[in-house]
Amino acid sequence: MKNYKIIVAYDGTRYKGWQSQKNTDATIEGKLEGVLEKEVGHPVAVIGSGRTDAGVHARGQTANFHLEEDYGTEELLRLLNRYLPEDIAVLSVEEVPERFHSRFSAVEKVYQYRIHTGKIPEVFERRYVWHCTEPLWIEAMRNAAVYLTGTKDFTSFCGNKHMKKSAVRTVYEIRLEETEDELRITYRGNGFLQNMVRIMTGTLIEVGQGKRRPEEIPEILAAKNREKAGYTAQPQGLTLLEVRYGELAG
Amino acid sequence: MKNYKIIVAYDGTRYKGWQSQKNTDATIEGKLEGVLEKEVGHPVAVIGSGRTDAGVHARGQTANFHLEEDYGTEELLRLLNRYLPEDIAVLSVEEVPERFHSRFSAVEKVYQYRIHTGKIPEVFERRYVWHCTEPLWIEAMRNAAVYLTGTKDFTSFCGNKHMKKSAVRTVYEIRLEETEDELRITYRGNGFLQNMVRIMTGTLIEVGQGKRRPEEIPEILAAKNREKAGYTAQPQGLTLLEVRYGELAG
Repeated sequence: MKNYKIIVAYDGTRYKGWQSQKNTDATIEGKLEGVLEKEVGHPVAVIGSGRTDAGVHARGQTANFHLEEDYGTEELLRLLNRYLPEDIAVLSVEEVPERFHSRFSAVEKVYQYRIHTGKIPEVFERRYVWHCTEPLWIEAMRNAAVYLTGTKDFTSFCGNKHMKKSAVRTVYEIRLEETEDELRITYRGNGFLQNMVRIMTGTLIEVGQGKRRPEEIPEILAAKNREKAGYTAQPQGLTLLEVRYGELAG
Repeated sequence: MKNYKIIVAYDGTRYKGWQSQKNTDATIEGKLEGVLEKEVGHPVAVIGSGRTDAGVHARGQTANFHLEEDYGTEELLRLLNRYLPEDIAVLSVEEVPERFHSRFSAVEKVYQYRIHTGKIPEVFERRYVWHCTEPLWIEAMRNAAVYLTGTKDFTSFCGNKHMKKSAVRTVYEIRLEETEDELRITYRGNGFLQNMVRIMTGTLIEVGQGKRRPEEIPEILAAKNREKAGYTAQPQGLTLLEVRYGELAG
């Protein structure tokens, strides 16, 4: 039994997210499993590092799956890219130790939210940015981001109301970079709850619009109540850039 | 009567080209004229620097139109971008002298053809590149490109068989630039015939694949016969980058 780690890029626009669903095959996981099943002749479970929401993109989603059959990594790479739709690509296939698990072994994830701030709409990148026509006060957003960094209970920033497990996560860094017509917010953390990056982004945007003060963030966190945080930013601006693993995990 | 020059960007994927057609409004010109007519209450003729084929993109198509009504350039820019579909954007609006004509005043055009040469399909730029999985012999393509440069009769590279006017054009430069997984061919000339950039590209690709020798190009040109040249490269890889005007023309 071999364990294969794959890195996957996708344009999430027309998908209902990463995770397989019963009534649709319009998920990234579903497409990968479909191609593998057709190839090897039996169902193959693809384990993702985490779910991405409907409409969210990835440049470095990571997954793994086990195969008894003997395939070379180059062969798998070629097969997958040959039969996957054009908005999903496997960037690499690697054989990893049996204990590697794309979700449990992950030690860090990097997400990026792109906000197009120019007054002229962006034609070619339009599916991968969110267009904000109102001015944003970046300095206030940077101050708010500092309050969101560190090891905290992020219940107020979790879209799943029935979450039973710990909502404590560590956000290592939230970096805001401005170009002439774009603001990029990069989030680096040991893990993110459902919708967490989008709710943090929506909250930062509300701070940038002057609807909230940066100093409110500690109260929002302390409330442990989703209603206290800002809106869930549109999925199209969000991309999962990278999933990092410790050395042992391969 | 004011004369307005506009610079337009578009993702040509879902359009039947630049030029208005009777039985469809799925053209860039048609969309621009539609928005202007709705705004000013009567038909407005938009004059493009030239037609782009169905599926071809532009980052700097140029057009002009006349209005009796008094609009500010900022107002026109805002109105156009507000009502145009998200895959068309007006980058600038400028008032120009009455004699300015986007087609007749143009002195130079720059087109770029992008060929994705990496083995992994390109997910995010997939609509703007053509994916070539076979290896290309770039040096032979560069040699062939030299034969296509200069003032020549390009009848063999013209998609319009009923062309009655002169097919003499001057190609100033054909530049091939390679990155790790992309080949970009940039064409600069005083004008291009129908499909000419795509036929030149198809011919260069056939040279790159070893199907033709660079030395055949002079014969192809001399034949003045479309059948002698290579195939018409897929439109999706082509983008009109810029239309240049002399100083007098504004």
